[in-house]
Amino acid sequence: MNHQVRLAARPSGLPRPTDWSFATEAVPDPGPGQFVVAVSHLSIDPAMRGWMDARPSYIPPVEIGAVMRAGGVGRVTASEHPGFAVGDEVVGVFGVQEYAVSGGQGVMKIDTSLAPPVTYLGALGMTGFTAYFGLLDTGKLKPGETVVVSGAAGAVGSVAGQIAKIKGCRVIGIAGGPQKCRWLTEELGFDAAIDYRAGNVRKALREHAPRGVDVYFDNVGGEILDTVLANLAVGARIALCGAISGYNDMRHPLGLRNTTNLIVKCGTMRGFLVMQFAARFGAAIAELAAWAAAGTIKSEIDVVEGLENAPAALRRLFAGENLGKQLVKVAAP
Amino acid sequence: MNHQVRLAARPSGLPRPTDWSFATEAVPDPGPGQFVVAVSHLSIDPAMRGWMDARPSYIPPVEIGAVMRAGGVGRVTASEHPGFAVGDEVVGVFGVQEYAVSGGQGVMKIDTSLAPPVTYLGALGMTGFTAYFGLLDTGKLKPGETVVVSGAAGAVGSVAGQIAKIKGCRVIGIAGGPQKCRWLTEELGFDAAIDYRAGNVRKALREHAPRGVDVYFDNVGGEILDTVLANLAVGARIALCGAISGYNDMRHPLGLRNTTNLIVKCGTMRGFLVMQFAARFGAAIAELAAWAAAGTIKSEIDVVEGLENAPAALRRLFAGENLGKQLVKVAAP
Repeated sequence: MNHQVRLAARPSGLPRPTDWSFATEAVPDPGPGQFVVAVSHLSIDPAMRGWMDARPSYIPPVEIGAVMRAGGVGRVTASEHPGFAVGDEVVGVFGVQEYAVSGGQGVMKIDTSLAPPVTYLGALGMTGFTAYFGLLDTGKLKPGETVVVSGAAGAVGSVAGQIAKIKGCRVIGIAGGPQKCRWLTEELGFDAAIDYRAGNVRKALREHAPRGVDVYFDNVGGEILDTVLANLAVGARIALCGAISGYNDMRHPLGLRNTTNLIVKCGTMRGFLVMQFAARFGAAIAELAAWAAAGTIKSEIDVVEGLENAPAALRRLFAGENLGKQLVKVAAP
Repeated sequence: MNHQVRLAARPSGLPRPTDWSFATEAVPDPGPGQFVVAVSHLSIDPAMRGWMDARPSYIPPVEIGAVMRAGGVGRVTASEHPGFAVGDEVVGVFGVQEYAVSGGQGVMKIDTSLAPPVTYLGALGMTGFTAYFGLLDTGKLKPGETVVVSGAAGAVGSVAGQIAKIKGCRVIGIAGGPQKCRWLTEELGFDAAIDYRAGNVRKALREHAPRGVDVYFDNVGGEILDTVLANLAVGARIALCGAISGYNDMRHPLGLRNTTNLIVKCGTMRGFLVMQFAARFGAAIAELAAWAAAGTIKSEIDVVEGLENAPAALRRLFAGENLGKQLVKVAAP
């Protein structure tokens, strides 16, 4: 049987148990040009929250009653597709289910001699590409600059900070709690870490970046983004990757007040989506794989067991409970 | 005698009469390497409000007791400088006074056969350069795009909109009141104008830019900027020129709430200062002068008589009373 997690209702604020339903179907057979994947791990990402809303965005919302959208890795178990054979290890958007039928669109075979499959959901997958292109292309990072990363102990943030170190920058991470902050400086080589839960981010930022921030890789938006906006160096670039602080906030919080500083500092704030760089994923994976092999990028994973716990795993992101990449291990069929 | 307007106190909110003092000095003599300019017209700009505050910015604040900083045009009346002769017509930052001593820094001679002196404070001066570089370099305008300009009936906005028309764009101006809006569409050739005082800017923007805004040239910040942020086309560029709506607002208004749309639309919001393009002013003036001569750029001026009325002229900007470039005509000495 194929167990699935479906979207039952559009959440208001933080998704609740009643926003999900659990379904069981027969394991599908592939039609002509299709194959079936047995999913081993799911990628749990803040973007999933946005896909649950009805409002128009960069991809269509998940329909009510549909299997929840999610990236995953798995193995081909049946195939009527000339490009995919039984036993192939693949990464793609397979949804929160044990078995997925695919026509191959957006699915890539992965080289498990290079890294274990789950790494293709992390540093060698969308997570790594997001950090890589956001920092280098959108952030236009230059050696010697002062870089700040928020959500620094999360999947994308932790890779972004490590890439900035490789590129010869001074890197300051912002994360929640002393444990994450220690991990950033002691394990990942960040130059400094600011615990936003401990209070005065503005003061800490002035201490650690006295000449202002050259590049800010933003995963959180809201107050922390506004605080960094007040502390820019001339010519600063802000790469807007995500804004997790506001994804569940229905109150429509106070907005950014310090954007006028972009004028004073001739600064740039630019949003990006990793898919705009899809044509260059091949080049990125080569460089990321070399760094991972050399140990200059450490890829932490945080695994929740069981498909049925995918909703709980998503909540972990919004509570800031994950360290590194949040995954769900799908029970072996 | 040399009449002057000096900064007496740092304003809280809109500058009041008590924030200014009026002084009279002897007309200065030039020292070696200096010359004296008799100022004929002053440029009155929103940026002057920022120069009155103590907080650090892109140039030092005007000191309490100092002559207020302002651009101006005038004629050299005495010179000990090898590069400037008596009778030369010049543009520079001479301050709110009848006579200024200068060492020549930032002063340019102007060609009054090409255009009258006041035009060098408008379309052929910093105003024109600001519109030109903000739109073409910061905004990266492309033919056929949909362009929105706020403060569209002001000095910079009116030139920016006309340049966008020359470049083959669809141009929507945002201004206050039916008279300004009529002027934009009937006299300056804007495709549409939105009267923000009439109410629903969001609805009007959706009507006039149904596929979203490609380039937004922002002079006002605040609510109007936030409204445009909610209506971006994919790949939109926002050129932040000014934020006049907040310059006098001590209440620290609600901030921008729609910046997350920069992620969804892969948009860019970039601040600029005209001086970053100083090396290219020569090229810009050649193109701007050709457009002005051909009549494709009309340069409206709004003249207040009398040096002593400079504070009142500045208030006109914040009340939205000016049409085109606000000048003060300094009484003939």
